Amino acid sequence: MREEPYKQELRSIVGDAFFKDDAESLVTHSYDGTPMLQKLPDGVIYPKNTEQVSQIIKVLGKYGIPLISRGSGTNLCGGTVPVQGGIVMVMHRMNAILDVDMQNLTATVQPGIITKKFIEHIENLGLFYPPDPSSMAISTIGGNIAECSGGLRGLKYGTTKDYVIGLECVLASGEVLRTGGKLTKDVAGYDLTKLLIGSEGTLAVITEATLKLIPPPKYKKTMLAMFKDIYGAARTVSKIIENQIIPATLEFMDNPTIRVVEDFSKLGLPLDVAAILLIEQDGELEMVERDIAKMAEICKEELADRVSVASSQEEALKLLTARRSAFTALARLRPTTILEDATVPRSRIADMVLEINRIAQKHNVQICTFGHAGDGNLHPTATTDARDEEEIHRVEAAFEEIFEAAIRLGGTITGEHGVGMVKAPFLEWKVGSAGIEIMKNIKHAFDPQGLLNPGKIFAKETRRRVVIDHG
Amino acid sequence: MREEPYKQELRSIVGDAFFKDDAESLVTHSYDGTPMLQKLPDGVIYPKNTEQVSQIIKVLGKYGIPLISRGSGTNLCGGTVPVQGGIVMVMHRMNAILDVDMQNLTATVQPGIITKKFIEHIENLGLFYPPDPSSMAISTIGGNIAECSGGLRGLKYGTTKDYVIGLECVLASGEVLRTGGKLTKDVAGYDLTKLLIGSEGTLAVITEATLKLIPPPKYKKTMLAMFKDIYGAARTVSKIIENQIIPATLEFMDNPTIRVVEDFSKLGLPLDVAAILLIEQDGELEMVERDIAKMAEICKEELADRVSVASSQEEALKLLTARRSAFTALARLRPTTILEDATVPRSRIADMVLEINRIAQKHNVQICTFGHAGDGNLHPTATTDARDEEEIHRVEAAFEEIFEAAIRLGGTITGEHGVGMVKAPFLEWKVGSAGIEIMKNIKHAFDPQGLLNPGKIFAKETRRRVVIDHG
Repeated sequence: MREEPYKQELRSIVGDAFFKDDAESLVTHSYDGTPMLQKLPDGVIYPKNTEQVSQIIKVLGKYGIPLISRGSGTNLCGGTVPVQGGIVMVMHRMNAILDVDMQNLTATVQPGIITKKFIEHIENLGLFYPPDPSSMAISTIGGNIAECSGGLRGLKYGTTKDYVIGLECVLASGEVLRTGGKLTKDVAGYDLTKLLIGSEGTLAVITEATLKLIPPPKYKKTMLAMFKDIYGAARTVSKIIENQIIPATLEFMDNPTIRVVEDFSKLGLPLDVAAILLIEQDGELEMVERDIAKMAEICKEELADRVSVASSQEEALKLLTARRSAFTALARLRPTTILEDATVPRSRIADMVLEINRIAQKHNVQICTFGHAGDGNLHPTATTDARDEEEIHRVEAAFEEIFEAAIRLGGTITGEHGVGMVKAPFLEWKVGSAGIEIMKNIKHAFDPQGLLNPGKIFAKETRRRVVIDHG
Repeated sequence: MREEPYKQELRSIVGDAFFKDDAESLVTHSYDGTPMLQKLPDGVIYPKNTEQVSQIIKVLGKYGIPLISRGSGTNLCGGTVPVQGGIVMVMHRMNAILDVDMQNLTATVQPGIITKKFIEHIENLGLFYPPDPSSMAISTIGGNIAECSGGLRGLKYGTTKDYVIGLECVLASGEVLRTGGKLTKDVAGYDLTKLLIGSEGTLAVITEATLKLIPPPKYKKTMLAMFKDIYGAARTVSKIIENQIIPATLEFMDNPTIRVVEDFSKLGLPLDVAAILLIEQDGELEMVERDIAKMAEICKEELADRVSVASSQEEALKLLTARRSAFTALARLRPTTILEDATVPRSRIADMVLEINRIAQKHNVQICTFGHAGDGNLHPTATTDARDEEEIHRVEAAFEEIFEAAIRLGGTITGEHGVGMVKAPFLEWKVGSAGIEIMKNIKHAFDPQGLLNPGKIFAKETRRRVVIDHG
């Protein structure tokens, strides 16, 4: 059988070595970091430069074939599953650091660079790029931009959107668009840079990014506070912010999370406490000392069982690494791990934890909670088994109620993971029907044929509001 | 003659007292802070709440009448001139501070609140809202959001877009849309909040905003450095950033600006220097001391004539106020003052100043330059006379070349003033034809009838590229 003409055209752009449609390539690109979602693409392509991306988009546009651009696929919202088939475009070959500008404190990179590799490169030059998603050892900067990734340092330093100041992208037409630049200020027309960040590959394909760098903090201290009362820990979070302290990190782990993290990392974490707060402050020495002392005081006021300051950078790093491993550690418990990211105003953390526990109990499912408490971004995580249909239904029902609770508390359905397929049925709860309509219009403005990552963000049908049973 | 039906409908929404179409009201709303632009509207309306805004938009949509929403009209891009007639909607009655949330460090306000009044209110509560446009004594928060206003503190703290985390707005359909919330993280769909910021009233009418507040810096020091060589001052700016110091303020004034500011403010500024840098650092005491000392050293390396640290908060405030008065002071020189804001990467400040002076000389026009040097945002300001047509043509030709030079140096046509009418012919130079097309599509996605602030951002025709004469 002769190969379809569009595939021949794609091969002629990138060469045979960089277009694949063998069974193995299709299967390995049929899923991403999200459990229970899979669909085979029709091919996988690896462009080496912007010009090739443009040519590929033009060919796919001509034939009406969907295009799913992706990095390492570490997202947790089904953002890169080729749910309507089509061609998966992997950006890994476009992984150069094109420029680090020490005068303007910017870096310009291609999208396929691994986040951690980029961060290490920058740190070796004595500079600082704060966004640090937990997946950063594997994720790409392009993927971080597509999903507007957060991370542990988001509370004090902001997320990916706060550090991207210029983009090059290829539009659905194949045209190349450049936005922003090495500029901290630019109000020439609508802010397309910010619109593209977090647009999940549905508006354009990002081919280059200019990132803002900042001077690194001079000192850092790390502290652990253990609580017998989970709500004491949650109240501590609110009180710290209320005292006008913005720590570099303010992470929360509940008891089930502590248990698996300890089992995984052997740090000697106590197994008998209800919650741990992992707190970091960085900056000038006197401020770090003052803030750490004040936060320790607040922890004690909220009846922390124990407060301990890491004695060395190594110990601090171990603690942070342990926290970052929470997802991996939880994933060992049972066959399927569903990590969510309901987000609330910081003042409602205690209420949200209470709600999550109540809902988990009601549906008889196991949900551990950890997350970036300082910005109200919790990761309730269900450990379950995808093969047990009945249990999965209970897990889904519980998460529906959790999202409902987040909205009710003034929060949102996703703080940093994105909408993708997983949150699409709930998006209207947050943005309303007027918001959905405007977003669909924007999508159409960029991608009239609907070929860029179709089936994401917008659901065929909005999930009905679940009536919360307060009984 | 009976009044037109749409006017009757508007009166019935707000009451006779709040719809005006007498000659005086029309004239006073026919212009804004921008010189040489004027057009009479057909009426002026003052809504008191979101519901009225929605009703007004529906009526105007039904009759196909343009709507120009505005605050105090301090913009400098012709952003609120009713260039196609229609109804000017003044937001001053909607000026409440609805909520200051000390737990989440947010404030929720109506758009008509005066910026300075809001900042003072927040500071009295011990909190900090950094965006400080020079017009802040008159401008409104709603206007700041529409134009994405910057200010003196933008270098270290960012501009309006970095502090708006939620919006309520009324769409062209009359529907009310809510975006974001009291959330530092929210990735539920496209970032409509950031898209609306800086959209200059062309996408929706902002009726409420939730703003992020931060803890105020503990200490502050202010320093003046005088330079005999203007490029020494410009190089100092680059060197400060290169040394990884991000000062709170890093302002530049050239000699003509110093002269008028001194004449206006009687501070004893030296009149024989080529340029002054006004430098502030804030934060922790030890860091402020260290940074000020290091910056003084850099100034001396670049042959600063004199470096003096303000001896008191009062003196520092006087210096800042003097800098803020530059526009007002320059406006006294000649009948017409045209203040622009070409912006370049910080490392190109010296080149840009050189270009501005060369271009001014070539066209024999008087251009003073001051501005936010730390973020590459310069305000070349022409003092001229609108009645002298020949001179105005020379001024316009000079500014065209200045924008061209900014683009050539990797900059933009506007760093903080917006596009409005003034920059519309140049927008394509920055964003390209693909950018213009996408922006027009976005405009259409929000406002299919084209009634929201028509005639702004998009020009009928792009100004041809000026060929720079390097002779």
